[in-house]
Amino acid sequence: MAKDITKRSEDYSQWYVDVVLRGELADYSPVKGCMVIRPNGYAVWENIQRNLDRMFKETGHVNAYFPMLIPESFLKKEAEHVEGFAPECAVVTHAGGKLLEEPLVIRPTSETIIWSTYKNWIKSYRDLPILINQWANVCRWEMRTRLFLRTTEFLWQEGHTAHATSEEAQEETFKMVNVYKKFAETYMAMPVIVGKTTEQEKFAGALHTYCIEAMMQDGKALQSGTSHHLGQNFAKAFDVQFQDANKQLQYVYGTSWGVSTRLIGGIVMSHSDDKGLVIPPKLAPLPVVFVPIWRSDEEMAAVLGRARELTRDWDPLFYKIDDRDQYKPGYKFNEWEVRGVPVRVEIGPRDCQNNQVVLVRRDTGEKSPVPMDGLRGTVERMLEEIQANLFETARKRMETNLHVCDSFDEYAARVGNGGFFRVHWCGANECETKLAEETRSSIRCIPFDAPEEEGACIVCGKSSKRRVLAAQAY
Amino acid sequence: MAKDITKRSEDYSQWYVDVVLRGELADYSPVKGCMVIRPNGYAVWENIQRNLDRMFKETGHVNAYFPMLIPESFLKKEAEHVEGFAPECAVVTHAGGKLLEEPLVIRPTSETIIWSTYKNWIKSYRDLPILINQWANVCRWEMRTRLFLRTTEFLWQEGHTAHATSEEAQEETFKMVNVYKKFAETYMAMPVIVGKTTEQEKFAGALHTYCIEAMMQDGKALQSGTSHHLGQNFAKAFDVQFQDANKQLQYVYGTSWGVSTRLIGGIVMSHSDDKGLVIPPKLAPLPVVFVPIWRSDEEMAAVLGRARELTRDWDPLFYKIDDRDQYKPGYKFNEWEVRGVPVRVEIGPRDCQNNQVVLVRRDTGEKSPVPMDGLRGTVERMLEEIQANLFETARKRMETNLHVCDSFDEYAARVGNGGFFRVHWCGANECETKLAEETRSSIRCIPFDAPEEEGACIVCGKSSKRRVLAAQAY
Repeated sequence: MAKDITKRSEDYSQWYVDVVLRGELADYSPVKGCMVIRPNGYAVWENIQRNLDRMFKETGHVNAYFPMLIPESFLKKEAEHVEGFAPECAVVTHAGGKLLEEPLVIRPTSETIIWSTYKNWIKSYRDLPILINQWANVCRWEMRTRLFLRTTEFLWQEGHTAHATSEEAQEETFKMVNVYKKFAETYMAMPVIVGKTTEQEKFAGALHTYCIEAMMQDGKALQSGTSHHLGQNFAKAFDVQFQDANKQLQYVYGTSWGVSTRLIGGIVMSHSDDKGLVIPPKLAPLPVVFVPIWRSDEEMAAVLGRARELTRDWDPLFYKIDDRDQYKPGYKFNEWEVRGVPVRVEIGPRDCQNNQVVLVRRDTGEKSPVPMDGLRGTVERMLEEIQANLFETARKRMETNLHVCDSFDEYAARVGNGGFFRVHWCGANECETKLAEETRSSIRCIPFDAPEEEGACIVCGKSSKRRVLAAQAY
Repeated sequence: MAKDITKRSEDYSQWYVDVVLRGELADYSPVKGCMVIRPNGYAVWENIQRNLDRMFKETGHVNAYFPMLIPESFLKKEAEHVEGFAPECAVVTHAGGKLLEEPLVIRPTSETIIWSTYKNWIKSYRDLPILINQWANVCRWEMRTRLFLRTTEFLWQEGHTAHATSEEAQEETFKMVNVYKKFAETYMAMPVIVGKTTEQEKFAGALHTYCIEAMMQDGKALQSGTSHHLGQNFAKAFDVQFQDANKQLQYVYGTSWGVSTRLIGGIVMSHSDDKGLVIPPKLAPLPVVFVPIWRSDEEMAAVLGRARELTRDWDPLFYKIDDRDQYKPGYKFNEWEVRGVPVRVEIGPRDCQNNQVVLVRRDTGEKSPVPMDGLRGTVERMLEEIQANLFETARKRMETNLHVCDSFDEYAARVGNGGFFRVHWCGANECETKLAEETRSSIRCIPFDAPEEEGACIVCGKSSKRRVLAAQAY
């Protein structure tokens, strides 16, 4: 089966599609740009949701749900917002067999419907802060789509908070981009660079946008999460004011922040290989699969019996014994590799005699015989090692492919081969646009950890105070 | 604040709206027929989801996600289905700034998009069964809407399974309606009657529909969950065939089943009272609230300290200490009552001296002083008692208001006052329609447990073999 997967070295884009389809993460759908998230992919999303949701709740947030349909006029209340999103909207013009008086758009993001509601909930400083998150589907009509990375409909979470002061909103914005960083690194085993986007790349309607940028195996960047300081923009658009402790009316400050099913694409492109999916153990739908080996019915009974005995008190969501009789072990090994199961346990008649099993790591392919005694602990330690190894491999890749570059020509020549480039930029829109147009790459962010450093913009040569991160991106 | 809640005896419908709004379960939205599910309501939904999802997984199901937008032509492939759902659809005609070649409807339910996908996944009997569930939003353009009970957009789960035989599909259909019954009774404390709907009331495109019917406090019925045997209808519409073990091509058998945010309306109308929400402990967003009582800063420090000490090793999602200084205890008591918190713990300086606290049950209002020692266990037992009491109260209400009736005139005179009626019905559509039109009620279901019994249809007098359940319904 792995023969069906194109090698990364041959065609990286096709490899990605093959891995996603063959690993049964997703499938194409009859609706342009939309995909079906299959059970193996949705289970990854459920693991992402469960862990992120806990992190949101630990930072004081609660979940709610707002309507998916937004009156078209709402979008227009914030000038930059409508400019950014209106061209991508899907529009409902008819419903219940009638033409609607006002068209409704399917939410491309929910700031407008949420701030129109916050107006009713916020009167006094006592009503603040509001710390709400929503798990939902959204629609953005994209020209070119790719499974998970860019689809017309996608699943995401969107946090929408309201605060009495700009400082508090700023703190929230930082806090959440750091929650994303922690989640990406700890659960997805995907190192990221945190920074602020340029003015041109910020969210339509925000004061500032912060983001996390990860490096895929081909050296391209994937923006994996964003957190926006909205200032008073949406409060002013929807007239949301509160009475402060001194009985003065003030506009409310807002933030919004989100990650989406795009993260699953990031997992695939961070860790998978030419044999198929590799899923970090902490997010794997199935961490462990037992593949018993037998040649006779008698052996089958003995080996299966032993496997069941070994796993008697294991959580059923943690492992599976592949007892299918119609497939040979080699077929099964391959199938579970393609699906990205982190640890395979091989157990045959000889192993049973020796009170051992053979563990096979999905990340390195390494095989090791281990005693049956204490197997659960051995497997758990191996899962931790795999998680750590995936992160370390990705971290080294990012380190190796993070270049300092001081010449536009050199940058233009190299960026097409992948990698992140730390370059000086004067801050002018024109230089950013020129870089984008001439190199098909972009300034990804101004990293938080970029030290002050005098330099010359690689585009125009004017003075620059710090380096920014530039790369090709998905 | 409870003054804002209309009494049930005065205006039951208004009472319902007051309880939902004041309990902050939901709010109206600027979009016709759509509502905002507020954090207190969404947390109930999360508890419903978590428990149902576990029950689905225990019965072998996995989750997936299919596109929300469905080509209009798909709906038309199953004749009854399109007739039932097309008039309720919201239609996207424009997207990305252009007129679409084919309009897309927002899913009112997902059979069509899912069976069009199953066609690609099912080739052989080895690919069966497929046991998939989806958590999603759907849209049905309703004329008259009510918070939770009937909204244009709602959240639900929809199971869609595919089987090799009709018997297996039948078994699945029964299994899932029984999962719903168990969930309703165990978690929602809401007794239900399980049965089969009439031909006229079955799902558009199904062979048979099974349902659970609950009785609200006003004696009206609430259909709370449905499970459909689809036969080969959707397989034929989308040409989904499989090769059986004898290499013969056969159409696949299907089922679908769902419950929605309507369940939250059922919880409200089963248990709440004139003081506001009553939420069964197993689904309560916050099971326990501590309201400390003090008159001086010194007392405040002492009482709060003691409350924190008592709850040191409690799960933070299980309780809250209301330490707000700007509100008096009476205000807090009322607020938590309106929000439906099952157990209130009052703790004052005197209680601290006596090493006791006062527990107040939301369901009965009963107050009992209990020792601080072993408080966690005492509270947990009380929560179990409340859960059991809510169920028992609802069960008695249903028992008391379940009438046997053998005369159409008597039925017509009584049904408007609420209650379920076990009546004979010959099975003819005309009699069902006449009953519905003349009494503004309907045949809810043919209960599974209705014994064979000879009788005369209350409408036409013809022979009937068993009684059906008739009532007014939401």
